Amino acid sequence: MKDYLIAPSILAADFARLGDEVERVLAGGADVIHFDVMDNHYVPNLTFGPMVCKAIRDFGISAPIDVHLMVKPVDSLIPQFAQAGASIITFHPEASEHIDRSLALIKEQGCKAGLVLNPATPLHILEHVMDKLDVILLMSVNPGFGGQSFIPHTLEKLRQTRALIDASGRDIRLEVDGGIKVDNIAEVAAAGADMFVAGSAIFNQPDYKAVITQMRDQLAKVQA
Amino acid sequence: MKDYLIAPSILAADFARLGDEVERVLAGGADVIHFDVMDNHYVPNLTFGPMVCKAIRDFGISAPIDVHLMVKPVDSLIPQFAQAGASIITFHPEASEHIDRSLALIKEQGCKAGLVLNPATPLHILEHVMDKLDVILLMSVNPGFGGQSFIPHTLEKLRQTRALIDASGRDIRLEVDGGIKVDNIAEVAAAGADMFVAGSAIFNQPDYKAVITQMRDQLAKVQA
Amino acid sequence: MKDYLIAPSILAADFARLGDEVERVLAGGADVIHFDVMDNHYVPNLTFGPMVCKAIRDFGISAPIDVHLMVKPVDSLIPQFAQAGASIITFHPEASEHIDRSLALIKEQGCKAGLVLNPATPLHILEHVMDKLDVILLMSVNPGFGGQSFIPHTLEKLRQTRALIDASGRDIRLEVDGGIKVDNIAEVAAAGADMFVAGSAIFNQPDYKAVITQMRDQLAKVQA
Amino acid sequence: MKDYLIAPSILAADFARLGDEVERVLAGGADVIHFDVMDNHYVPNLTFGPMVCKAIRDFGISAPIDVHLMVKPVDSLIPQFAQAGASIITFHPEASEHIDRSLALIKEQGCKAGLVLNPATPLHILEHVMDKLDVILLMSVNPGFGGQSFIPHTLEKLRQTRALIDASGRDIRLEVDGGIKVDNIAEVAAAGADMFVAGSAIFNQPDYKAVITQMRDQLAKVQA
Amino acid sequence: MKDYLIAPSILAADFARLGDEVERVLAGGADVIHFDVMDNHYVPNLTFGPMVCKAIRDFGISAPIDVHLMVKPVDSLIPQFAQAGASIITFHPEASEHIDRSLALIKEQGCKAGLVLNPATPLHILEHVMDKLDVILLMSVNPGFGGQSFIPHTLEKLRQTRALIDASGRDIRLEVDGGIKVDNIAEVAAAGADMFVAGSAIFNQPDYKAVITQMRDQLAKVQA
Amino acid sequence: MKDYLIAPSILAADFARLGDEVERVLAGGADVIHFDVMDNHYVPNLTFGPMVCKAIRDFGISAPIDVHLMVKPVDSLIPQFAQAGASIITFHPEASEHIDRSLALIKEQGCKAGLVLNPATPLHILEHVMDKLDVILLMSVNPGFGGQSFIPHTLEKLRQTRALIDASGRDIRLEVDGGIKVDNIAEVAAAGADMFVAGSAIFNQPDYKAVITQMRDQLAKVQA
Repeated sequence: MKDYLIAPSILAADFARLGDEVERVLAGGADVIHFDVMDNHYVPNLTFGPMVCKAIRDFGISAPIDVHLMVKPVDSLIPQFAQAGASIITFHPEASEHIDRSLALIKEQGCKAGLVLNPATPLHILEHVMDKLDVILLMSVNPGFGGQSFIPHTLEKLRQTRALIDASGRDIRLEVDGGIKVDNIAEVAAAGADMFVAGSAIFNQPDYKAVITQMRDQLAKVQA
Repeated sequence: MKDYLIAPSILAADFARLGDEVERVLAGGADVIHFDVMDNHYVPNLTFGPMVCKAIRDFGISAPIDVHLMVKPVDSLIPQFAQAGASIITFHPEASEHIDRSLALIKEQGCKAGLVLNPATPLHILEHVMDKLDVILLMSVNPGFGGQSFIPHTLEKLRQTRALIDASGRDIRLEVDGGIKVDNIAEVAAAGADMFVAGSAIFNQPDYKAVITQMRDQLAKVQA
Repeated sequence: MKDYLIAPSILAADFARLGDEVERVLAGGADVIHFDVMDNHYVPNLTFGPMVCKAIRDFGISAPIDVHLMVKPVDSLIPQFAQAGASIITFHPEASEHIDRSLALIKEQGCKAGLVLNPATPLHILEHVMDKLDVILLMSVNPGFGGQSFIPHTLEKLRQTRALIDASGRDIRLEVDGGIKVDNIAEVAAAGADMFVAGSAIFNQPDYKAVITQMRDQLAKVQA
Repeated sequence: MKDYLIAPSILAADFARLGDEVERVLAGGADVIHFDVMDNHYVPNLTFGPMVCKAIRDFGISAPIDVHLMVKPVDSLIPQFAQAGASIITFHPEASEHIDRSLALIKEQGCKAGLVLNPATPLHILEHVMDKLDVILLMSVNPGFGGQSFIPHTLEKLRQTRALIDASGRDIRLEVDGGIKVDNIAEVAAAGADMFVAGSAIFNQPDYKAVITQMRDQLAKVQA
Repeated sequence: MKDYLIAPSILAADFARLGDEVERVLAGGADVIHFDVMDNHYVPNLTFGPMVCKAIRDFGISAPIDVHLMVKPVDSLIPQFAQAGASIITFHPEASEHIDRSLALIKEQGCKAGLVLNPATPLHILEHVMDKLDVILLMSVNPGFGGQSFIPHTLEKLRQTRALIDASGRDIRLEVDGGIKVDNIAEVAAAGADMFVAGSAIFNQPDYKAVITQMRDQLAKVQA
Repeated sequence: MKDYLIAPSILAADFARLGDEVERVLAGGADVIHFDVMDNHYVPNLTFGPMVCKAIRDFGISAPIDVHLMVKPVDSLIPQFAQAGASIITFHPEASEHIDRSLALIKEQGCKAGLVLNPATPLHILEHVMDKLDVILLMSVNPGFGGQSFIPHTLEKLRQTRALIDASGRDIRLEVDGGIKVDNIAEVAAAGADMFVAGSAIFNQPDYKAVITQMRDQLAKVQA
């Protein structure tokens, strides 16, 4: 059976009780904790930095932490997040002058490395770095802006990316972020994704476990 | 009796339990909650943005929140922090092309406005905006860098700033931030400060109330 | 018969009599008024902004206005031009961190949206946004620099772009800008363009109608 | 009798009939034509560049043109405006890394040179360049933002600047821009200004001559 | 027999005796002198600018000088290096807003022009400028960072680039830079490169001629 | 007798024989070697970086090296120059967001620290950092631009700066750079300078010793 990962984004959690929130969502079946790091330069919002990652680790959370850097430039934050306990670090190719170098830096720091592609970013940017990628994250909304829904073209882009990954013969996660819900997670998985970020779809519900279970039920249908 | 305000910086609090931390420090006698907002551009660190302010308000905290913007540029974050519940917003004059405009924007948004002066920044920058200031914050360390101690020259700069405020006849707080502890708070108050930011000096102690009480005892000596 | 649009660029018009100039060129048979908006950052020249668009509308001009943004970043000017009366807004993908978002913003503002490709920009940038484009504008000179002539390779690039548009089955204009004259408009149309920007070729002539008529005669040959 | 100059800003004129507008306002008694040049970087608006200056000259206008650069950086536009017919060029000290050099460049290009001070900018910036200045322009609103009224503190700042100019013994114009009207021009002149920018106060009235005459009447009272 | 060029990078030479170093390495059989120009913005190091090029020419060196610009932006340095005696100027497409224009500028200045591709940069960027290129330089390490070794994927990328060049029918050099040594130069040449930058591999050896001769011996095997 | 230092700028030396040039000028009586470091961002030229400092040290030069950073930002180059052998590092206050921090960083790295003031920069910037300065460098031309002569107002600014230094009671060098020659060095010393940068005035002469001796003769008159 194929392995699907659910990665709740703490952007939608209650930041006054973050430790508890993360514990609850993990208890509810989440696989990975997703961090949406915004610097008000690459995207028009400021969220949080490495200190929050460290606080979660100090709280006793050992689950993988998946850090999505929506910052520009990226290199100075990579060691900071690695030391704060990040497991995976991904960034946008447009945000680094030296993409290969930034990927290498993430790996030198002991983390898994990935690139994030905006809705309009062509897949060709992946061509010469496939051997350095652990994760490819496709944005299904524009990062850093509120009130958007899943961009339908993402399904076609997921299929193309899945084909690239399969052709490479490498073990690369295909993550998707933006507008993922119980209603569309099966379709998204069918298009090739195997790691799913969800924020308000989980944290805005009273029962995190219930939502995650519904998502897993939907995913089970795809695998069947 | 003169009115002194103690403003613990949540930068040193436990971010996994932030609501409780803020409640505890207020119960311990803090007057104001201080926010150190860094964007990894104006200073080499990324901390947190408006969402944390909103979470604190949603948690039920009604104490004043004093937002120190270590970001560049500043204008886009001002309305976001005002809507998230900020009471005071201060920024560095070097970080805005239009200082008078940024001060006016803070006031239009219903907050008190202030300027923050780096250790090397001359006081002349205050000359033509004294009538728009509710707070002047003098940095007694360089903002955004770790491991620094109180810069002694700040005492002289506080005295000069106090003289400017007194000469203006206006009701302007003189805040100080960086290396403030029980040991030096009296001396700093004697130089003219009446609002004191302290981070690790409070949050790294087991008993917040004890530290704040010690600070107040020191301040009482100055007022005597 | 295929529909060709001629779009005189007012960059070459007499700005002391702009209302009259625009009226005269429309009376001479122009279909669309083209605006070359430069900010001295994306390109090394400063031309004009939304206020000129509004002045043209207030003068009573109702023809479509096609705004080519040679500015970086682009998002703040999009609503300003929409409110000033723009019909079409195009921008360079290199000038926006969030291309899909900028296209969506143009549409939310009620305008048609397009991307502009510099001579060296690959067509792959179009792949994941074809469903959001009303116009593709190929630069046949480098934008913002004077004294250039039509780059011959543009013909091949037009053919490739035409093939992409036809394959998409969508109704997308293929606009071209730079060095277009009576002498080469037929060849350019034959390569696939159906919207033609011309500046000095029209406005530097005494009789605008005569030039536009000659251009239409040339275009008629292609359609025949 | 002291010499007062009235400088209507064409920002408020009808850009579809700019030549006529400028002629009318000069016929109405204006001394100088004022250009508000904004690049959407130093201020959040894009207005117009050197081409408009050239168009006005080509239209036959010989009155002095006073170019206020609200752009950053400034050096590349200085020769362009000089060649387009500018008489005076002023810029903001915050917008040039090399203020003395930019002033020298303006003079080398055959224009008069000046600095523009934002409402919050201290006068100390003038200290070491008084011998290179033909004009000092004090902003009495924040440049580039709409809907502001005259900042009262400007009167005090004008008095201080007038004292600096008088102490220097040099022939330096003291210009003021922002919220100047018939109602306050006398008070502003009494504070030391001798060159007055007015935009909508003139161009939004049906009879330019009437407004300018009223302004001159007010100024006559000051001189009396 | 195919023509291979060896281009020692003076970055590794003794800058206190640069004239002698260049003479020695040319006497040792080098074909071209390679300049690694870094501005501490595009890459995190500052090396040297046009003045060093001029000094080498004034010293009497007439060999071709191949200037690799690791700077952003690039246009202002192009005429400076051309006037200082450069023969070839290459730059990174990410470092110029107007790639076609920068290439044209290099040619107008009488130099050969090329693009440099970082390890992760896709080859598609070459598509619409093949007719303007004299050189394509593939980076086999990330430029501007120390202590890296040859990235193995470069071999595959060289083969793809060689195919593009051959398909174009044009006379374009395929240069490679980063970790080139006697040990791997044959393999790199076999993959399609015909111009080889080497820095410390040559200048850190006591006998430049010996190293270059060994490199030529290796290259001779490929050609056989 | 007062102690005057002559600091030839190697910008004007022959870079093909730099070790010999530096040796010759020291043998001719120079006290300090001056480095003009330009990054093509803070000033419109690119000169050289830390590698040249290291080469000079490796060549065996032990005289003090005085590094004038005309770069922006400054912090990353400070440790690089310190490790390359710099003795003094100075920078422009406009080029660092955190002036006090940059000065502290220079000292932590074991070098003497200073600020450089452009011709228009007010002296007030020095007020709160006098206790951290070893050197104040006044520019008597605009840095980074060619063909300028000594700005006469510098004499008055030197007198004011000398008064500030004397009032501080501290041991701070007052350095001057730009257009210094045998003809004016006495006048400049009389105004308060005690460290003199000279470039072409020394290196463009056949006999360095002769020029330096003439300068010392002029300085002896001031001291008499």
